[in-house]
Amino acid sequence: MAKVGIIMGSDSDLPIMREAIEILEGFDIETEVDIVSAHRTPEKLFDYATNAHKRGIKVIIAGAGGAAHLPGMVASMSPLPVIGVPVKSRNSIDGWDSVLSILQMPGGVPVATVALDGAKNAGILAAQIIGSSDQCVLDKIIFYKESLKSKVLQASAKLKK
Amino acid sequence: MAKVGIIMGSDSDLPIMREAIEILEGFDIETEVDIVSAHRTPEKLFDYATNAHKRGIKVIIAGAGGAAHLPGMVASMSPLPVIGVPVKSRNSIDGWDSVLSILQMPGGVPVATVALDGAKNAGILAAQIIGSSDQCVLDKIIFYKESLKSKVLQASAKLKK
Amino acid sequence: MAKVGIIMGSDSDLPIMREAIEILEGFDIETEVDIVSAHRTPEKLFDYATNAHKRGIKVIIAGAGGAAHLPGMVASMSPLPVIGVPVKSRNSIDGWDSVLSILQMPGGVPVATVALDGAKNAGILAAQIIGSSDQCVLDKIIFYKESLKSKVLQASAKLKK
Amino acid sequence: MAKVGIIMGSDSDLPIMREAIEILEGFDIETEVDIVSAHRTPEKLFDYATNAHKRGIKVIIAGAGGAAHLPGMVASMSPLPVIGVPVKSRNSIDGWDSVLSILQMPGGVPVATVALDGAKNAGILAAQIIGSSDQCVLDKIIFYKESLKSKVLQASAKLKK
Amino acid sequence: MAKVGIIMGSDSDLPIMREAIEILEGFDIETEVDIVSAHRTPEKLFDYATNAHKRGIKVIIAGAGGAAHLPGMVASMSPLPVIGVPVKSRNSIDGWDSVLSILQMPGGVPVATVALDGAKNAGILAAQIIGSSDQCVLDKIIFYKESLKSKVLQASAKLKK
Amino acid sequence: MAKVGIIMGSDSDLPIMREAIEILEGFDIETEVDIVSAHRTPEKLFDYATNAHKRGIKVIIAGAGGAAHLPGMVASMSPLPVIGVPVKSRNSIDGWDSVLSILQMPGGVPVATVALDGAKNAGILAAQIIGSSDQCVLDKIIFYKESLKSKVLQASAKLKK
Amino acid sequence: MAKVGIIMGSDSDLPIMREAIEILEGFDIETEVDIVSAHRTPEKLFDYATNAHKRGIKVIIAGAGGAAHLPGMVASMSPLPVIGVPVKSRNSIDGWDSVLSILQMPGGVPVATVALDGAKNAGILAAQIIGSSDQCVLDKIIFYKESLKSKVLQASAKLKK
Amino acid sequence: MAKVGIIMGSDSDLPIMREAIEILEGFDIETEVDIVSAHRTPEKLFDYATNAHKRGIKVIIAGAGGAAHLPGMVASMSPLPVIGVPVKSRNSIDGWDSVLSILQMPGGVPVATVALDGAKNAGILAAQIIGSSDQCVLDKIIFYKESLKSKVLQASAKLKK
Repeated sequence: MAKVGIIMGSDSDLPIMREAIEILEGFDIETEVDIVSAHRTPEKLFDYATNAHKRGIKVIIAGAGGAAHLPGMVASMSPLPVIGVPVKSRNSIDGWDSVLSILQMPGGVPVATVALDGAKNAGILAAQIIGSSDQCVLDKIIFYKESLKSKVLQASAKLKK
Repeated sequence: MAKVGIIMGSDSDLPIMREAIEILEGFDIETEVDIVSAHRTPEKLFDYATNAHKRGIKVIIAGAGGAAHLPGMVASMSPLPVIGVPVKSRNSIDGWDSVLSILQMPGGVPVATVALDGAKNAGILAAQIIGSSDQCVLDKIIFYKESLKSKVLQASAKLKK
Repeated sequence: MAKVGIIMGSDSDLPIMREAIEILEGFDIETEVDIVSAHRTPEKLFDYATNAHKRGIKVIIAGAGGAAHLPGMVASMSPLPVIGVPVKSRNSIDGWDSVLSILQMPGGVPVATVALDGAKNAGILAAQIIGSSDQCVLDKIIFYKESLKSKVLQASAKLKK
Repeated sequence: MAKVGIIMGSDSDLPIMREAIEILEGFDIETEVDIVSAHRTPEKLFDYATNAHKRGIKVIIAGAGGAAHLPGMVASMSPLPVIGVPVKSRNSIDGWDSVLSILQMPGGVPVATVALDGAKNAGILAAQIIGSSDQCVLDKIIFYKESLKSKVLQASAKLKK
Repeated sequence: MAKVGIIMGSDSDLPIMREAIEILEGFDIETEVDIVSAHRTPEKLFDYATNAHKRGIKVIIAGAGGAAHLPGMVASMSPLPVIGVPVKSRNSIDGWDSVLSILQMPGGVPVATVALDGAKNAGILAAQIIGSSDQCVLDKIIFYKESLKSKVLQASAKLKK
Repeated sequence: MAKVGIIMGSDSDLPIMREAIEILEGFDIETEVDIVSAHRTPEKLFDYATNAHKRGIKVIIAGAGGAAHLPGMVASMSPLPVIGVPVKSRNSIDGWDSVLSILQMPGGVPVATVALDGAKNAGILAAQIIGSSDQCVLDKIIFYKESLKSKVLQASAKLKK
Repeated sequence: MAKVGIIMGSDSDLPIMREAIEILEGFDIETEVDIVSAHRTPEKLFDYATNAHKRGIKVIIAGAGGAAHLPGMVASMSPLPVIGVPVKSRNSIDGWDSVLSILQMPGGVPVATVALDGAKNAGILAAQIIGSSDQCVLDKIIFYKESLKSKVLQASAKLKK
Repeated sequence: MAKVGIIMGSDSDLPIMREAIEILEGFDIETEVDIVSAHRTPEKLFDYATNAHKRGIKVIIAGAGGAAHLPGMVASMSPLPVIGVPVKSRNSIDGWDSVLSILQMPGGVPVATVALDGAKNAGILAAQIIGSSDQCVLDKIIFYKESLKSKVLQASAKLKK
């Protein structure tokens, strides 16, 4: 059963959002992926956000660009932790629009925002949230962080040669 | 019957949004004012946005601060022109957050954005929209613009003395 | 008879502004297109802005880049609603110049600003303004919004396969 | 036993960070509060970050201002989800420094960033993370969101009178 | 006969623009001061800009805030050098709006822009422009620059005591 | 005898600064072009700035990128009007660095700043400064502005066909 | 004999720059303080920058606001390390002008930039530079950093009570 | 024995950081280069920062992109002067993130920040720091600055031909 719901405002966000899917696959965490547009399919947004936790979803990852309302609107209707991925879209003003419209949520309705185009980190954060109550996933994260270290140490060794 | 619906995300926006109400009163255009929070009352938002045009509302003015999703979400569900007022709220990053999250709407779902804290202009714009098919209102706008001119000419005359 | 006047500061803005023309054609709303430069043809600007409403124009769309004065100057002389399209021109500082010089109009003279390079949305907004007093156009907008929904749902269905 | 570790770079951050403590108290979630400075007590940071999950902490909230390295450095050494609160400190460049140095983490090491001075939302997000595997906390969050709604509806009713 | 025309968009700009008047008085250069609003008195703007050089004006200083179109529009219609003073008005987004809408003029129509609220420097620049063909004024500028030096040297001497 | 001195911080600025030379040639105003680096040839800068007006130069145009100190330092030592051209250099932060380090001069030492990469406008402004006391040049500027108008009207006519 | 030269563009910078003097006094490093304005006393700047190293100065700290050219111009003429302190002056655009005009120096002429209004850190950095070849000063820095740690630990202990 | 330690957060920073290595080679100053990631190898960071001065390193250059914590964290643990190089990484928001997270260090822990991607200047600054107590290196810097001058004078001569 899927534990992480990954949604995005448009299929043009898929090349970015795919990194979230892949990293979660690497942690053996099942995901459920869909396109839900706050501005074009508001009914689907309402349905998705109010029901996700009832289907067993534990964390939602929502990516969107420009005036990005998807993460915040999902957060307004779901009791689950919502991770927002600001996507740098085509007519974006250097990404500032999506960053600020996801990050600056009012008191009462948080969105856990990651870096611009940071879908990979959204996936890791989702795994950490699951890992906070699942020792097996937590161990995988500890292992993953060790692997990051190894890559740097190898690059360091290669540089010194 | 009210022709302009004025909504805001929080009663803390009222001191700013009042300017829209007052200017429309000056044009003898009836308004209907309410608090609708995209993040705290999403069902009310849904209800408001899908029904406003059925009640005879011709234009909607929506003001909000921070990650301001109210204008864009209303625009996603209403066929009416929606005017967005970026409000500079307490923890705002100098107003950039509300400006960008209202202005940078994706293709298909426009919001007519006015200046930061520009509720007065939102009211005038609503009157102009009504005036574009109502000669009587149009005449009032022509008269209003003349009055702006007079004030400047008076200030000019006073300065020269 | 044309209902929407579309003007731009330079023929280099045409590739962007064409999207406004096309979307209005899709709504069967007649447009009138011209090049009017606030800085190079100020007399034409004066003439255009003071006469548009007398010719039957209901809404004006004005696009310009850099220190973009066209939309605001037209708004200063016309009683009609003016929609401003900030165009990201060649030497623009990331588009901030055109966005701010269109959006931040003083009290009394609003410009309905859309997103950077958002000419398509300017066209839709113009249609919505006409639709607010024309049921036939309003119905087309409701239909158009439904078509946006369908495209997202199709993309969603395709993704799930 | 404390489930949420709340740390901040300086006692001058306490007026902001107190909101995280209070909201978690409202959810009956025990917190553990400390001052840990990335730049002045790096050993304590190291010790804190590597051990928090061993003591039963499930989520870490870290607040800091200026070049805010505390959240990111804790995230580099802890497998737990880390929530970062950008604090607008005295010599801050309008808060942009703390926002960007917390948000823009590199691939592999996410920080769940909330709004500038958004400690209250950090507390709610921590509760949501715990609630994603604890039905009792999840129910409290659902209840809390309902209470947000009530306040808006009351303000709406008051406005209409 | 006045050689420098000083105009501003609103009498609220007078406290800032007064510095230009005073510095020019110090150089014994006669000024002519008026309020001309691009957005509220466009005909007066037209009249002012097309005639200033015919009345013997040699340089125009124009100050305005927000979406500041006055300097650029005067420049579009006058062959004279136009100095623009970005004024930080009440609802300004930190002054960026007036700076960018004055500075970023398109090719063909320059505005000599000075610092935010830099009316004093606008006055000095006007004097320098007149001084470039008037040895007497040039000498006064040389003398003025010496006086700036003296003040710094005195402050230096005082500090060392 | 050259009337306009054109200097730039590096020969890499020449492709931009050439536009100033060409436009002045078009006005039959003789220019003198040199490379003077504030940071690499400070003695030459001192020599240039203190002597330009003694050689008959009437206006100085200075272009530079990044932390652009050339225009301001020349202005500190010359009584002549100095026009600053912010150049968007290779490692520039989107041009903001050169714009702000040229524009934001302290009281007493103005630089007439033009748009980013706006060397053409710098040339026109220099001609306008000379034209403010030289009827022949003023007439050429009036003629030039008419030619700008013609081009727009032609583009307009072409568009309508 | 003074080892650190501290200069500033105006006596209005003294309240900020005093922190550099005081911290260096705490390290028993003699300072020499003066006012040197790049824009108002360029000859003094020239003299100061070309001679400081001949008088035994080892490090220069230069503070300035707005279009801050003092640090960069000193760096252009002195072989010594120059530390730049961006000062947030009265008409500054939120400090961005001084930060960028000090930081973004071209290749060949570095300025060691510290935080906005960061004069205290400029003093510490100067001490570190001296300490890099003076064990006695290095020891004091090690001691100083320990004292920073103690203060945080005391604040932590106090919080826990 | 190496006098300057050059570290970077990732091998992707090497193309930029190489300029620091090369310029120091030109001054015959031995360098030691390594990859140390604050976020992926925190133990190595601790080890590096606390020991560098014990091995004879006199200055540390640290380059990193995005939320760049490496320079500040090294500065928190080393008594040596630390030079920070903001690197414009792939997902950077135009470089602002690395600039601000390196520059805006809190009181007590300075980082000597250079321009975005300014590794060459970091190398020169390191040489200047060594040169402040090493006459031989100081002489080389004086010579280097003369060579910068020559290049400009040659370009000037070439332009005039």
